[in-house]
Amino acid sequence: MLSKIKDIYDRVSEVNSYYLNNRELAVMDARVKAFGMRVRYFRKLLGISQDDLAEKAGMHRTYIGAIERGERNVSLLNILRLADALEIKVKELFNVDID
Amino acid sequence: MLSKIKDIYDRVSEVNSYYLNNRELAVMDARVKAFGMRVRYFRKLLGISQDDLAEKAGMHRTYIGAIERGERNVSLLNILRLADALEIKVKELFNVDID
Repeated sequence: MLSKIKDIYDRVSEVNSYYLNNRELAVMDARVKAFGMRVRYFRKLLGISQDDLAEKAGMHRTYIGAIERGERNVSLLNILRLADALEIKVKELFNVDID
Repeated sequence: MLSKIKDIYDRVSEVNSYYLNNRELAVMDARVKAFGMRVRYFRKLLGISQDDLAEKAGMHRTYIGAIERGERNVSLLNILRLADALEIKVKELFNVDID
């Protein structure tokens, strides 16, 4: 329970840090958006809808939409889940645009 | 402010989902640990300490330690920051073990 609270605290800290530096935020936003575009690219390659991907990855449909628009600071576990659901290796989500 | 609260809510939901399924958790844990080992590998390759990496990445030293031990569900933004600080491409953090 304590570690659960600690995790939540870490995440809240992350959100705070996310709002600290506007210049960094702009650069990071572009890379988060590029990540979202990779997710969308591989979803369309697989020929499935956001609904389908959401179900395969065990996430909510609106969350998939937000990820694809680059509006979510996705966690490692969800990145792994997305790659599994998209039937690709994780590194393919990072292959060109956002390095 | 509303989107900030929404972000925090999403993160808390993520933590909850993290605790739902023990079998998935075991598999995921191995992949999160492999990610941590990649971070440690590249840090040592660069010949810097956890303190140094923490400072370069703008994170806390104990957080770097926890990431390297696979105890943190690192966010996309922090994955990007880590890759920058390690002077590698993001995909290198996902290159072998955890795909």
